Amino acid sequence: MDIDQTIRQMARDARQAAGVIGCSATDQKNQALMNMADLLAQQAETIVQENHKDLKRAGEAGLSRAMVDRLTVTGKTIAAMAGGLREVAAYPDPVGTMGATRVRPNGLRVSKMRIPLGVIGIIYESRPNVTIDAAGLCLKSGNAVILRGGSEALYSNRALAVIIGQALKSVGLPVQAAQVVPTEDRAAINALLVQDALVDLIIPRGGEGLIRFVAENSRIPVLKHYKGVCHVFVDQSADLQMAEDICYNAKVQRPGVCNAMETLLVHEQVAQDFLPAMARRYDAADVQLRGCPKTCAILSDIPPATDADWPEEYLDLILAVKVVADMDDAMAHIARYGSNHTEAIVTSDYRRAHRFVRDVDASVVLVNASTRFNDGGQLGLGAEMGISTSKLHAFGPMGLHELTTQKFVVLGDGQVRE
Amino acid sequence: MDIDQTIRQMARDARQAAGVIGCSATDQKNQALMNMADLLAQQAETIVQENHKDLKRAGEAGLSRAMVDRLTVTGKTIAAMAGGLREVAAYPDPVGTMGATRVRPNGLRVSKMRIPLGVIGIIYESRPNVTIDAAGLCLKSGNAVILRGGSEALYSNRALAVIIGQALKSVGLPVQAAQVVPTEDRAAINALLVQDALVDLIIPRGGEGLIRFVAENSRIPVLKHYKGVCHVFVDQSADLQMAEDICYNAKVQRPGVCNAMETLLVHEQVAQDFLPAMARRYDAADVQLRGCPKTCAILSDIPPATDADWPEEYLDLILAVKVVADMDDAMAHIARYGSNHTEAIVTSDYRRAHRFVRDVDASVVLVNASTRFNDGGQLGLGAEMGISTSKLHAFGPMGLHELTTQKFVVLGDGQVRE
Repeated sequence: MDIDQTIRQMARDARQAAGVIGCSATDQKNQALMNMADLLAQQAETIVQENHKDLKRAGEAGLSRAMVDRLTVTGKTIAAMAGGLREVAAYPDPVGTMGATRVRPNGLRVSKMRIPLGVIGIIYESRPNVTIDAAGLCLKSGNAVILRGGSEALYSNRALAVIIGQALKSVGLPVQAAQVVPTEDRAAINALLVQDALVDLIIPRGGEGLIRFVAENSRIPVLKHYKGVCHVFVDQSADLQMAEDICYNAKVQRPGVCNAMETLLVHEQVAQDFLPAMARRYDAADVQLRGCPKTCAILSDIPPATDADWPEEYLDLILAVKVVADMDDAMAHIARYGSNHTEAIVTSDYRRAHRFVRDVDASVVLVNASTRFNDGGQLGLGAEMGISTSKLHAFGPMGLHELTTQKFVVLGDGQVRE
Repeated sequence: MDIDQTIRQMARDARQAAGVIGCSATDQKNQALMNMADLLAQQAETIVQENHKDLKRAGEAGLSRAMVDRLTVTGKTIAAMAGGLREVAAYPDPVGTMGATRVRPNGLRVSKMRIPLGVIGIIYESRPNVTIDAAGLCLKSGNAVILRGGSEALYSNRALAVIIGQALKSVGLPVQAAQVVPTEDRAAINALLVQDALVDLIIPRGGEGLIRFVAENSRIPVLKHYKGVCHVFVDQSADLQMAEDICYNAKVQRPGVCNAMETLLVHEQVAQDFLPAMARRYDAADVQLRGCPKTCAILSDIPPATDADWPEEYLDLILAVKVVADMDDAMAHIARYGSNHTEAIVTSDYRRAHRFVRDVDASVVLVNASTRFNDGGQLGLGAEMGISTSKLHAFGPMGLHELTTQKFVVLGDGQVRE
């Protein structure tokens, strides 16, 4: 197989399919999603068998337990994928919706219509469910998609691709609207990233290494999701019981995800009252603390934090703790070490809440709530394709809306320009 | 001078200044814009003198007359720049505006706040007025900007940079919020395009060669404006007098710009009635026509169009004309040769107007109006930074709004995730 030629042909086919799916009726797209969900349930056994081939290879290759976990597909995973598709079918279709109309002095009526982006390339690792989730969101938003999963999930992804194709076919949509790259060769990624004449957007999902590789080599715009180094700042006016609940939730409820808290910042006026009780709750949940000198002076039994701790995304039951002199100090720390992902303040002071919201540079800024709410479902956007930490086009959770753009529609009755 | 180091330091300074200007009050930004306008008027003589140095070099280097025209700064140009700044000062400030609030079942209040992008790099050619226009729009939208003008305008741009700095200083804003790259060396462009940790957006303005170079070499997201190959389709139901006025305006009113019509598509049922009268008007305006075989059968005195004509952006009083069998034929031609810029239909048929608007893939789609209305001012957006023909983030005219993004603001009273 000539990889460059294969990828180029896939991109051409996708571009053509995008012209069809971008204009297809909402009912037709929804029926495809519902059929895809039914097919997943019907072919669960085959999918699990194919997944076993990947798991066998993973065992032979000595993949880490975390990677094997992410790779594993069970009846429950399949039911979750099918449920996700039915949810996406139930969302309103963004394509064709129009905003307010502006009437110009010459009578021209100007508005904007939401349209698909066109062709989206998704480059991801491990989790085979991304294949179905991404195909579902792209289909609903009228985009053609090229999926390049990790080589470790090749058999699983191929089995899922068959189902996606069957679902598209069942409603008369072109199967080229969702294609899976049929090779493990990494050269396929490079070949895809230069198809800027045919592909409109690349979304990498995976580790920082993959994302940097894609960002540095792509001629196509990239929506990036780097790491989440999220902070909670407990202000001197905080309700300390509320602060405790929020800080516990932000760290403990699901420590392995990007919107979990990694560093706790505490105003020095309340540190003495707040930290010992908080530390007892963390201790009961096996959270390891690492403190700045002032923290260690209050919590004498925890190790000191080093310079390496402040920018660290632990994704684990580990938490860096820093006592800050005031809000300026907290905000300077966030500006230096934060990753523009999720930042929260616990306060009862109106002016500090207002200032934190206005001036902290993150995709989601929260007052008196857990960082764990930075999530498309939790914020009411529905299913998402990850969380963008770069500002162009999308900043924060990327849902159906973020997979579309807008064109201007101008209605006249003979206007010409003077 | 070590160019890489210089550019990196400029980017660092810009990033720091962005933190200040992004939070500065609307009044302060407006005052800086008004002061900049006053300073331009006061220092008009100096600017013209510095511009003469560039013009002298241009003469020695044998630049084309068109380039010298674009390069020339006169009292009138300076007054236009100052007027533009006063207009931008009068626009509403987008920064900090918030949309509708969504209340989640758990009581969380979710909204989005408009924020600056951060640091914007503008890479442009010839026209020194871009220096002022871009600085004004970036300042108003709370962004820091790095300006890299063409080497042919070095003296002019330096003189304008002094004024921008004075205006920022006069209101206490950091002068690093708008910096002009102090070297003609093209290596400065390469050095800028890899500062993806510090610069949020690159906007190239100029010829296709410059834009392709930037798009292919940038690690930073790029908002592109490629060529405008714009069509008007005269449908069989068109009011032929209206069609004549629109087609005349779209080609003749200002042929050298991107939203001028380059190809006229005429339904074969009306071609015999429409083309001869239209051709007489074009002839009176010295427009050279090039026709498809059917066109040439009706207009016997015009030369045939070749394959090279259909994708051509003439930017001149030249027009390709094609008779099409029906609307499908017209739309297929637009899909093949159009540049996603501006497309218009003249029709009195509701269903065809509806279909054209829905299915034609262009940043501005018009019914019964001239293509020349694809312009920020004409569409009611105010001053613009060019017209994006790529879909991500902005599609169509880029005004103040397109130089910003949105973050999520989540207000709670102690919510944690279950």
